[in-house]
Amino acid sequence: MKGLIWIVCLLSSLTYAIEPIAPIPQTLPYDPQKAALGQKLFYDPILSKDYSISCASCHKRAYGGTDGESVSVGIYQLQGNMNAPTVLNSTFNFKQFWNGRANNLREQALGPIHNPIEMGFSAAEAVSRLKKIPEYKESFQTITKRSLITSDDIADMIAEYEKTLITPNAKFDLFLKGKSTLSYEEQEGYNLFKTLGCATCHNGVNVGGNSFQKMGVIIPVKWDQKSSDRYALTKREIDKNVYKVPTLRNIALTAPYFHDGSAPTLKDAVKRMSYHNLGITLSDQESAYIISFLKTLTGKLPKTSLYR
Amino acid sequence: MKGLIWIVCLLSSLTYAIEPIAPIPQTLPYDPQKAALGQKLFYDPILSKDYSISCASCHKRAYGGTDGESVSVGIYQLQGNMNAPTVLNSTFNFKQFWNGRANNLREQALGPIHNPIEMGFSAAEAVSRLKKIPEYKESFQTITKRSLITSDDIADMIAEYEKTLITPNAKFDLFLKGKSTLSYEEQEGYNLFKTLGCATCHNGVNVGGNSFQKMGVIIPVKWDQKSSDRYALTKREIDKNVYKVPTLRNIALTAPYFHDGSAPTLKDAVKRMSYHNLGITLSDQESAYIISFLKTLTGKLPKTSLYR
Repeated sequence: MKGLIWIVCLLSSLTYAIEPIAPIPQTLPYDPQKAALGQKLFYDPILSKDYSISCASCHKRAYGGTDGESVSVGIYQLQGNMNAPTVLNSTFNFKQFWNGRANNLREQALGPIHNPIEMGFSAAEAVSRLKKIPEYKESFQTITKRSLITSDDIADMIAEYEKTLITPNAKFDLFLKGKSTLSYEEQEGYNLFKTLGCATCHNGVNVGGNSFQKMGVIIPVKWDQKSSDRYALTKREIDKNVYKVPTLRNIALTAPYFHDGSAPTLKDAVKRMSYHNLGITLSDQESAYIISFLKTLTGKLPKTSLYR
Repeated sequence: MKGLIWIVCLLSSLTYAIEPIAPIPQTLPYDPQKAALGQKLFYDPILSKDYSISCASCHKRAYGGTDGESVSVGIYQLQGNMNAPTVLNSTFNFKQFWNGRANNLREQALGPIHNPIEMGFSAAEAVSRLKKIPEYKESFQTITKRSLITSDDIADMIAEYEKTLITPNAKFDLFLKGKSTLSYEEQEGYNLFKTLGCATCHNGVNVGGNSFQKMGVIIPVKWDQKSSDRYALTKREIDKNVYKVPTLRNIALTAPYFHDGSAPTLKDAVKRMSYHNLGITLSDQESAYIISFLKTLTGKLPKTSLYR
């Protein structure tokens, strides 16, 4: 399945090979039964220790798949230390989480459930709750043809649902396909985006999400040892402040920005990123153009209901 | 049904008539089928225009049935102008909304759906979406024995679910029942709460929620013409800054406080309320005692899952 997605994206990229950004496909193949069950799990606070938090608590549609907070808040109102990355189009990321510690959405799905300051639970306890609920038990059995629910099944369903959370038909994608034109400001912004070097890291279908990069590669930023960067995984000095490049899809909806949510506005994010990672001090005019372009990356959000 | 609830509360009050606060009953009668459907609707963003907001978006379990924001945010990230009141124990309020414009939970339920800056939708449109979804259509038909879904049915189911959102067994209720004792600080706080006059308005099962009062009755506060106070309904001068007294149940979980969310902490809320509505400047020690007491009002929150 993952292979198929990449083939779709690759073909998509080839068709528009002249540009560093490729449009999001209209649909991706997915299993509707699994996705329907995955959606119920995604919205169900039963997966958190105190029944207070669901996946949807930190991944809201109105905030482009994030929660609009600097850092997320988990059970018992515990403060996290990372900005919730968007769930939208996450299927196009090469790894999941800011530091890429999950290889795919299935690996990712159980992460927040186990995180003591997020959902504070364990997959085993989640399984034990779910199997006591006849509707869940029946739904899992119908799909898996097994009487036992496993934590992998939970991950599988949620990941399948997340495949449906893609946002095609952004103005920029329509432009790439020759079905729309950009305004003067948007075009200027896109030109700057390419010529200044933003597109070096923010490219592909997800305009990011396909490489690790250092935050502050030109002009260093202070390292926070509490942050979940690549260093937290590898303990290699070179991996300090290294994160997965975030997608810029729907970026106008997902303030605040950066792994720590420290950039309250797009303007702040664009200026600081240009400064630290390109060594460029943008003028207000330039950042305004780039923001005009970034706003064209807002796609058509999937409709959603607990019943599909 | 409403009558029955009041009888339960009245009996409850009589049993503990010596105190101005009565314990929350362990359970209230409700229709499990309606409540189960109501819960699905409560969590389903299908009821908002852009599929982004559900009732649960602003009434979260982890925040004691509120959203932890000063004022709520609706569809398209539109900023509201009122602090989300808690849904927990709302069945015990004599009216609903800050200005009491709904007489009961059924009348309340459709309000946010219609509010252009909340869910920005209409009940008619909601009905039209729901009836296209076989699972919803079937659930409504099973309950109502009618083929038609009406907006009143939606309100009915949600209101029925909300009856289940009560929080009995707070430390203070156990104290009232002689099953627990208060610490020195908590008892001092409760004494102050009664002798200074807080209990004049904050009393009964919900420690509030049973009268309208003016914010700033002794020392006036500035009137904000955008606010949804009683004046917005009656246009009578005397109703400016008049709101339903909010419940103090689970108050430790529902910061920020007041109708406009302008009090970030309990300390700030207690001090300002004492000043403006009792004409008293509390010492830090007194407000600390009162806060200790207020924390004993946190009850046992209902467990919840999309499947009941």
